[in-house]
Amino acid sequence: MRVDIITLAVDDLDRALAFYRRVFRSDSEGIVGTQYDEDDQNAAGAIAPFDLDGGMMLSLYPRKQLAKDAHISATAQKSGEFSLGHFASSRDDVDAWLKRAEDAGATITEAPRERPWGIYSGYFKDPDGHLWEIIWRL
Amino acid sequence: MRVDIITLAVDDLDRALAFYRRVFRSDSEGIVGTQYDEDDQNAAGAIAPFDLDGGMMLSLYPRKQLAKDAHISATAQKSGEFSLGHFASSRDDVDAWLKRAEDAGATITEAPRERPWGIYSGYFKDPDGHLWEIIWRL
Repeated sequence: MRVDIITLAVDDLDRALAFYRRVFRSDSEGIVGTQYDEDDQNAAGAIAPFDLDGGMMLSLYPRKQLAKDAHISATAQKSGEFSLGHFASSRDDVDAWLKRAEDAGATITEAPRERPWGIYSGYFKDPDGHLWEIIWRL
Repeated sequence: MRVDIITLAVDDLDRALAFYRRVFRSDSEGIVGTQYDEDDQNAAGAIAPFDLDGGMMLSLYPRKQLAKDAHISATAQKSGEFSLGHFASSRDDVDAWLKRAEDAGATITEAPRERPWGIYSGYFKDPDGHLWEIIWRL
């Protein structure tokens, strides 16, 4: 089984795109799919996709559009449903990731530290509250 | 940039493990990390990891432990923060995935249908409310 796409619900597509371009140091293609009518019941609006290493896509998508596509109620943002983990290349790389995220508008929720299961890691949440754990395996 | 781990917050680790074993048709290693004291402020409890194709791990983790690790407040489950997308191999494979998920305890939130951007897809939410979109590219 493969996860091919991770879609993150966002309140402001431009803000989220700018944030992830800075954090990933990526010049992604930007916002695509603007030809679809976001008020159409069968068609959602624009997305901002990032091609990740390993063939996966991370897609930023307006919260109300994801709710419409999935046929659920759209509600306010909430942290703690999930986290995305990235393996950094060193302890310093963990610190650098968190610094870059903070500079781009993230909130550091937990400063990096060693944890009992053999990792050094810290957490940030993005401007929409989505958690990331940046991990160096000791 | 790579996402190495997707961690899903769950209310009942045994229930979530049983669900994903059925949906993924996987005999994963089960619950690991039970040696850590879940009441320790520095150590969280057990997880149920799945090794996915492409080298990524999907990890089921008690909601309150993720909140503790990330140093955020633990709150009740909520859908719509994100979705995970899987590319099925055919239209019938989309239908089979959704049927298998429903049989395992998922709720189909949106029956599969063709969407304007060239896919046939449907959504389910798992017993903890996490959304999955199963996609066949037309």
